Amino acid sequence: MKTVYNFSAGPAVLPKPVLEKAKSELLNYQNSGMSVMELSHRSSLFESIIQDAEQLLRELMQIPNNYRVLFLQGGASLQFTMIPLNLAQNKKAQYINTGTWSKKAISEAKKLSNVTVEVIASSEEKNFTYIPEVTEEMIDPDAAYVHITTNNTIEGTAFTTLPKTGKVPLVADMSSNILANEYNVEDFGVIYAGAQKNIGPAGLTVVIIREDLLGLSEVPSAMLDYKIQAESHSLYNTPPTFSIYMAKLVFEWIKEQGAAAGMFKQDQEKAALLYQALERSSLFSSPVNPANRSLTNIPFITGNETLDKKFIAEATEMGLENLKGHRLVGGMRASLYNAFPIAGVHALIDFMQAFEKENGGN
Amino acid sequence: MKTVYNFSAGPAVLPKPVLEKAKSELLNYQNSGMSVMELSHRSSLFESIIQDAEQLLRELMQIPNNYRVLFLQGGASLQFTMIPLNLAQNKKAQYINTGTWSKKAISEAKKLSNVTVEVIASSEEKNFTYIPEVTEEMIDPDAAYVHITTNNTIEGTAFTTLPKTGKVPLVADMSSNILANEYNVEDFGVIYAGAQKNIGPAGLTVVIIREDLLGLSEVPSAMLDYKIQAESHSLYNTPPTFSIYMAKLVFEWIKEQGAAAGMFKQDQEKAALLYQALERSSLFSSPVNPANRSLTNIPFITGNETLDKKFIAEATEMGLENLKGHRLVGGMRASLYNAFPIAGVHALIDFMQAFEKENGGN
Repeated sequence: MKTVYNFSAGPAVLPKPVLEKAKSELLNYQNSGMSVMELSHRSSLFESIIQDAEQLLRELMQIPNNYRVLFLQGGASLQFTMIPLNLAQNKKAQYINTGTWSKKAISEAKKLSNVTVEVIASSEEKNFTYIPEVTEEMIDPDAAYVHITTNNTIEGTAFTTLPKTGKVPLVADMSSNILANEYNVEDFGVIYAGAQKNIGPAGLTVVIIREDLLGLSEVPSAMLDYKIQAESHSLYNTPPTFSIYMAKLVFEWIKEQGAAAGMFKQDQEKAALLYQALERSSLFSSPVNPANRSLTNIPFITGNETLDKKFIAEATEMGLENLKGHRLVGGMRASLYNAFPIAGVHALIDFMQAFEKENGGN
Repeated sequence: MKTVYNFSAGPAVLPKPVLEKAKSELLNYQNSGMSVMELSHRSSLFESIIQDAEQLLRELMQIPNNYRVLFLQGGASLQFTMIPLNLAQNKKAQYINTGTWSKKAISEAKKLSNVTVEVIASSEEKNFTYIPEVTEEMIDPDAAYVHITTNNTIEGTAFTTLPKTGKVPLVADMSSNILANEYNVEDFGVIYAGAQKNIGPAGLTVVIIREDLLGLSEVPSAMLDYKIQAESHSLYNTPPTFSIYMAKLVFEWIKEQGAAAGMFKQDQEKAALLYQALERSSLFSSPVNPANRSLTNIPFITGNETLDKKFIAEATEMGLENLKGHRLVGGMRASLYNAFPIAGVHALIDFMQAFEKENGGN
């Protein structure tokens, strides 16, 4: 099997031991004679899986007891609708616009006729290369929530300090840095994340919601109602059972790595290696404000599109896959999620140096 | 590995060769060095998977070109909202109430304030043991659609002849008999189905929709908008990639079995074996009207709850798993989906005969 380092922004690399474990029991889970995919979601075997997954995530992120953990479907994109539908009907919701995904969250919230959307800060005028300052005066104390994207997958920025929102719940799309950056769950009203970056396969969305935020509005669809999902322990209908099983295996692996804190340390180390290489380089550079750089998504450019293309093509040949930047930003992007091995960062840096030597760097 | 026959109503048994294929390439899909779960949904490898899945389903069901095939999330339960939201805003929708899932579809549609819901026929008064007659006079020619549940998973009934709805689109929840019973796609405006019975793992929903039904209303959420999902070829956001891959493998397997027509023949044979055994038995019987019996979900009872429990417990001991009927119906239920092997039907019948001999049958 060829050695490949997969820099994909998501679906992304999974821990090798997790894939091996899944493979070993794919046709016969715990000597049941059945695959996890064949288990009824009402069976005791699957109930253990989903309960373990929740318990592990609680441990890893130190989730307090007054928060509920939901395993849903539809990705962060469906949360863009569910958040205002559940929390902000006939109210105002405040948004901080820090990138492509923030913009989508804003435009989906605006589609709901009884929600007032206010964008209180934005870095769009500088192509989202920094995180704008949010001061307490910007927060409307009557707002239903303040929404942020903790890590901007496409633009490569992240919130390192959170805006102070007082009693207004902070709602965060944490899709691309959940379990990577270390945050305090109590600072948030709601955290949501698509699984396909740091948690498991695509098709699963994790929502962590403070109990007092359940049941605030009538929601015209059971599937979109956090209260119903919480009351049925994510078993209102058939959940994505295999994805939840995979998430459980990933959570076990993260626990072995020292939980969110341990991952944060490893992710800092990996990111620092690449950022230092970018600082040293006379060919490659980061387009992002140094104070706001993401640990998990690191865009970089040569400033020359033809050279970028050449770099990506040659890197792919070497088994450095999915380095092409998002079309909105161009250049390259290395996504270094939890499961991405440090050896892959070294391989990338070695290749960047060789490429720089051959292509007119100093 | 112990031999188990899994009669689960869903998530259900998958074809063994499909699981073996998935296992064999779980860590290294087509020599990419990556798992399918690790592939970017924008990669050419995954694009081939989703295109092949669609093409195969088109072949298996002979889907005409003026129908779009969507791979979505949220199960049939989210379709209960999406159908009226996309097709019936400010209109009337007509429903036929044939069981627990029809009732849920009706109650979700009623939650939308600008949809008028009319139930035009129901078998609820007889515990949903038959399919009510629907005559042309019942159809409102101005209705947005007429909704049916082609197969009632819990109650064990199925539509063998479809109601004539004239120009009013027929919308069908086909979750539990898609690719089992043979239907003509052109008879429907929309067909939808959760994957976890006849298609693949839970977490995937297939929607087949006639093109002229796209974009009829403004939908206040991109994820819930069929038109947006169709225009982006189910890649508006990250789809459940691994489930789509598994569905593709299942479709390949069904093609080998002779497509939907071939499966229908096999399923008829399996169901006939069990129904004949129930007719012969003096202990077990079917609670369902003979003319409306399902091929895929076969409830049966002894008429004595204690005996039912004993049967289920002893059957489970023998490796005949998940025979417990739904709590709303009681007794037993054998779900004989496409992947369920005929050997398992014989094993069940043998065990029923032995049990009957020991427990007071003639």
